Amino acid sequence: MRIRVVVPITSLSEADLEDRRRRLSREALPTTEIEFVPVKKGPITIESFYEDELAAIDLLENVKKAEEDGVDAVIIWCSGDPAVDAARELVKIPVVGPGEASFILATLLAHKFTVISPLGRDVVRYENKAKILGVESKLASVRPLGITVLGLRSNREEAIRRIVSLSEKAIKEDGAHAIVLGCLGMFGMAKEVQERIGIPVIDPGIAALKIAELLVQAGLSFSKLTYPYPPKKEG
Amino acid sequence: MRIRVVVPITSLSEADLEDRRRRLSREALPTTEIEFVPVKKGPITIESFYEDELAAIDLLENVKKAEEDGVDAVIIWCSGDPAVDAARELVKIPVVGPGEASFILATLLAHKFTVISPLGRDVVRYENKAKILGVESKLASVRPLGITVLGLRSNREEAIRRIVSLSEKAIKEDGAHAIVLGCLGMFGMAKEVQERIGIPVIDPGIAALKIAELLVQAGLSFSKLTYPYPPKKEG
Amino acid sequence: MRIRVVVPITSLSEADLEDRRRRLSREALPTTEIEFVPVKKGPITIESFYEDELAAIDLLENVKKAEEDGVDAVIIWCSGDPAVDAARELVKIPVVGPGEASFILATLLAHKFTVISPLGRDVVRYENKAKILGVESKLASVRPLGITVLGLRSNREEAIRRIVSLSEKAIKEDGAHAIVLGCLGMFGMAKEVQERIGIPVIDPGIAALKIAELLVQAGLSFSKLTYPYPPKKEG
Amino acid sequence: MRIRVVVPITSLSEADLEDRRRRLSREALPTTEIEFVPVKKGPITIESFYEDELAAIDLLENVKKAEEDGVDAVIIWCSGDPAVDAARELVKIPVVGPGEASFILATLLAHKFTVISPLGRDVVRYENKAKILGVESKLASVRPLGITVLGLRSNREEAIRRIVSLSEKAIKEDGAHAIVLGCLGMFGMAKEVQERIGIPVIDPGIAALKIAELLVQAGLSFSKLTYPYPPKKEG
Amino acid sequence: MRIRVVVPITSLSEADLEDRRRRLSREALPTTEIEFVPVKKGPITIESFYEDELAAIDLLENVKKAEEDGVDAVIIWCSGDPAVDAARELVKIPVVGPGEASFILATLLAHKFTVISPLGRDVVRYENKAKILGVESKLASVRPLGITVLGLRSNREEAIRRIVSLSEKAIKEDGAHAIVLGCLGMFGMAKEVQERIGIPVIDPGIAALKIAELLVQAGLSFSKLTYPYPPKKEG
Amino acid sequence: MRIRVVVPITSLSEADLEDRRRRLSREALPTTEIEFVPVKKGPITIESFYEDELAAIDLLENVKKAEEDGVDAVIIWCSGDPAVDAARELVKIPVVGPGEASFILATLLAHKFTVISPLGRDVVRYENKAKILGVESKLASVRPLGITVLGLRSNREEAIRRIVSLSEKAIKEDGAHAIVLGCLGMFGMAKEVQERIGIPVIDPGIAALKIAELLVQAGLSFSKLTYPYPPKKEG
Repeated sequence: MRIRVVVPITSLSEADLEDRRRRLSREALPTTEIEFVPVKKGPITIESFYEDELAAIDLLENVKKAEEDGVDAVIIWCSGDPAVDAARELVKIPVVGPGEASFILATLLAHKFTVISPLGRDVVRYENKAKILGVESKLASVRPLGITVLGLRSNREEAIRRIVSLSEKAIKEDGAHAIVLGCLGMFGMAKEVQERIGIPVIDPGIAALKIAELLVQAGLSFSKLTYPYPPKKEG
Repeated sequence: MRIRVVVPITSLSEADLEDRRRRLSREALPTTEIEFVPVKKGPITIESFYEDELAAIDLLENVKKAEEDGVDAVIIWCSGDPAVDAARELVKIPVVGPGEASFILATLLAHKFTVISPLGRDVVRYENKAKILGVESKLASVRPLGITVLGLRSNREEAIRRIVSLSEKAIKEDGAHAIVLGCLGMFGMAKEVQERIGIPVIDPGIAALKIAELLVQAGLSFSKLTYPYPPKKEG
Repeated sequence: MRIRVVVPITSLSEADLEDRRRRLSREALPTTEIEFVPVKKGPITIESFYEDELAAIDLLENVKKAEEDGVDAVIIWCSGDPAVDAARELVKIPVVGPGEASFILATLLAHKFTVISPLGRDVVRYENKAKILGVESKLASVRPLGITVLGLRSNREEAIRRIVSLSEKAIKEDGAHAIVLGCLGMFGMAKEVQERIGIPVIDPGIAALKIAELLVQAGLSFSKLTYPYPPKKEG
Repeated sequence: MRIRVVVPITSLSEADLEDRRRRLSREALPTTEIEFVPVKKGPITIESFYEDELAAIDLLENVKKAEEDGVDAVIIWCSGDPAVDAARELVKIPVVGPGEASFILATLLAHKFTVISPLGRDVVRYENKAKILGVESKLASVRPLGITVLGLRSNREEAIRRIVSLSEKAIKEDGAHAIVLGCLGMFGMAKEVQERIGIPVIDPGIAALKIAELLVQAGLSFSKLTYPYPPKKEG
Repeated sequence: MRIRVVVPITSLSEADLEDRRRRLSREALPTTEIEFVPVKKGPITIESFYEDELAAIDLLENVKKAEEDGVDAVIIWCSGDPAVDAARELVKIPVVGPGEASFILATLLAHKFTVISPLGRDVVRYENKAKILGVESKLASVRPLGITVLGLRSNREEAIRRIVSLSEKAIKEDGAHAIVLGCLGMFGMAKEVQERIGIPVIDPGIAALKIAELLVQAGLSFSKLTYPYPPKKEG
Repeated sequence: MRIRVVVPITSLSEADLEDRRRRLSREALPTTEIEFVPVKKGPITIESFYEDELAAIDLLENVKKAEEDGVDAVIIWCSGDPAVDAARELVKIPVVGPGEASFILATLLAHKFTVISPLGRDVVRYENKAKILGVESKLASVRPLGITVLGLRSNREEAIRRIVSLSEKAIKEDGAHAIVLGCLGMFGMAKEVQERIGIPVIDPGIAALKIAELLVQAGLSFSKLTYPYPPKKEG
């Protein structure tokens, strides 16, 4: 199976992308081939609704191209799931958002879950996502780290320390029974955090990959009644 | 007060825009100056999440420019409220979406309301909008006309007839006590429909204008905690 | 346009009423004429469900008379919105409650809002109002000042100081992105509070006025399916 | 135990009241003494929010007097539960509303329930009541008979026939598993309806009586945090 | 009326059972006969979903037998309401769960309520119960004592002290207006706690008894559409 | 990876079990080994809450044994997910319920979904499941086939015809955008139905298998805060 990861930001170097590809491939099925394709034009990182929009056009072209290239599923490499609704309209193959994939796994595994986000402004985004997905009663809280996306990359140890400490607060004060890492900047940190806090910690990269593989294997994709093709114009 | 209406679609001719401007100005306060500014690049009409994205970049530039030009408020001329969250991040002045403006007025005026939309696919969009706004328990139903946006323009009489007939169904079968016209293609039809069915009918153009005027007069705008400026990047 | 403000309490002197009229008129459109009419019999202030009932009969007579006098809209001068449902049954013109008007504006402008109320007992009233309006998921909290309605009048500076401090708590601890002043005893304090805390602060008097003006201008009133005329009795 | 039934309408003759008293007493514990006390001034029947208000003042006096007279509990004889919140503020003894009593029993006994109401306008009232009580997800529907309160009295057989037929519709089309009779004009009809349709049918008079007896026996009353005494005024 | 209390645990001695029977009988109507019947095989106490299952089979046999013996209603002596849905399928007489009975009374009497549970793990159980009953918006919080069921029995004074202290916290921090004692190990403690904290405190044993008596007197039982008899198998 | 399917009913012969194992293995990863283990004592089929209980004890023993045998995950072979909460308390490995697995996939893939159930009585079960999982706003409807579990096995073609026809009704009348097959008696029918109706159709057997494989691969299991081990008893 071929899965193409569309990267909607421009701050990952070729080496960074290759690093992510290698690390994600380690989590994949032996028969899964993973490709990372960045947008040519887009925001440095996505931390606002505005940057969602900056990412969108190029991202959508990439999703269309992925289907034309015979790819089996697409992952948008951002937990904010930018333009994911629009992307699903354009193609038949599954387009997986790491945010949504994480939320439904946490919904299954725990009475309630907390999202650890980079910044305070993400609270709006993630509470809205929970409402749209229909799982708002499962969201115990969104807890911001106070670290930007770029900051997450440059200081892995400090980030993990703070994620652990926030998670413990979320367990004690908010009733969280599972943790969702709310940014691909935290990709690869879940296992270490899970070992320390002893409850399920959902890695958005792995969640997206595994859900994408699941959908392809099960012959499932997003409903074309929810995401019909954009209409042809009359005139 | 100066209000700029940003038109996120390209299918309105200069004459069409002038017509809309004149008709909307008739509803405005004597001291309100209304300008219509279309995007240069964008979709013919907006009937999908994909077309939201096609409209976004140029629309956002226009919103920023409006504030720089000293405009007091901006209206996005589409009931789908495309890119309205991103736009509010960029400026301090109110950016009003006709869909949201209509929904909150209907929430105030009636026990429950129905949205008359152009197409069946709009059900997802409007049910999601109600969830995000937090008024999902007030939304009796979304009833599609089965007429495209372009079709609405070319056949006004037929459209009104079908809006009236759908509204009567919504009253009887869904418990609707007010009607929201869910497309700017229905701008100017509310009064006629209201006269025939005897319950409040919200015109999205007038709702947006009146809410924009209200906010400017009351010295209110959207919360900068909900819509903070996009962050500067470190590197 | 003529707007009549029905005052459901008896503790405002003629001078007080004239003062409120003058201050509210400053917020009105140039073409709006505002009249303040107090009930003859009623409670000193309204701080309980019981006092709602004491206010009701005289208030309702005043609403009926307002319509007979050719007034365009009525405002009930109390954020508890006493007898507002009954009043809407009696007339066709809009009867605006400052509480409801404030709630829908806050719903539009912010992800979540907090109501600053005079007393702790108001929590029940405002949480119920949010449920009935259908915006309970937008209400971050109700925070009582611990100051009675009469107390608010006699100590403006102290009141503002405490509103500011409670609002800051609501932002930090409850996730509030906007503030609703939950009593007409706080009329005229919103702008000062807004300047200090930097997020939208809704003044119930101004909210009610502006919504009343909006409805009259837009040719809208409350649904007669939600508020039909009281039935004639058979026998 | 002494239970006083306060009747908030004026259309029941002395004989009618005695008839109701006798019939309700048959459902009571042997040690329960029931008194029926009508308001002196009030509406003929209660079918609107306006008539709630007409009933309120005299009703509240009666509630206060009941407590002074040493009565153990009060029932407001109307399924609309007029002024029940205000009444609870005035006294320590339980003040039971037949509507609320019916709703919580139906919530216990069935997955979902339907309220059979006299008129179509009652839909708003009962859907709001369910929201305030917090049981809106249990309310399958409100189905109006299209018979006024006075009509219910004069044509018992026809009323029962239509209640049965509406209940069967509610079972089939709305998923109702229990029925609440939504008007004291249907007092005494529940058993007959229950026999015919085979699911629980809640009689508002009996529900109110039994809940009142239960509360007195269990030493429970309404929370004084929810319904504190009206505040003394400073000045 | 005969009420049989089925005890789903094995740690109550004959003397304990007789003690409970005597104390519950004191709360009953003079005409109510109460019998306590323990399961022969079952868990020591019920503090997990697993122990629900250990209790179920023998409990269900007892419920069926109760109906055959001509008993009028059954109470399951555990606030977790184990196997209560299955039990209602087997018989026509009311099968009352103390947890559900407590929740609906608290829903009636207060704006919001808090459940005091033995252990932290009970939060999941009681939040789920509130969702299924449809009263989740009334549940202010679940506050665990950190005392096991057996611990509750052996140290009554300490338990009451901690219930009082937790209840005061729930009032102040969670907005609780009533308290539900969430374990039969607290049977008989409600009155003492209520006297100290001044708001309604629901005793699960008394709630179950009084609801059972109410249902029998009112000729009501659980809906056979919600709890139909288990189907006969074809083959 | 080893996955053990615990079959909580007794009506599947050895040949039936082998048939299911073979068909499910075809959907599995090449490295997944699947074993089917039936309970020794249990109901013929599960169509009631009572039969859940009949299945529970033996099922729980099997789950514990599975972990002792070194199995990586357990699937309970029934869409009602009997005793799944209790089972998760007993072990650390994932215990997957086909109902829950189906619901979360449908939540991800579609705006709303409909469950096709064998019998009308399943409506209660599946609406409750949606509430507990927190996805009740995504459940468009539960549509019963009117065919028992045994009936499903013996008449595959007729079952598929009726599933297709009910699904089309659900799309048109209930707004369903995806279908969940609500019984393992429909295992293997999803693909055929999906081809005919053109929207996602979730097979409970495949959903459970794929979610089990996903969890094992991702190193995830159910939260031990939601499902802690049953407590040791003091005495």
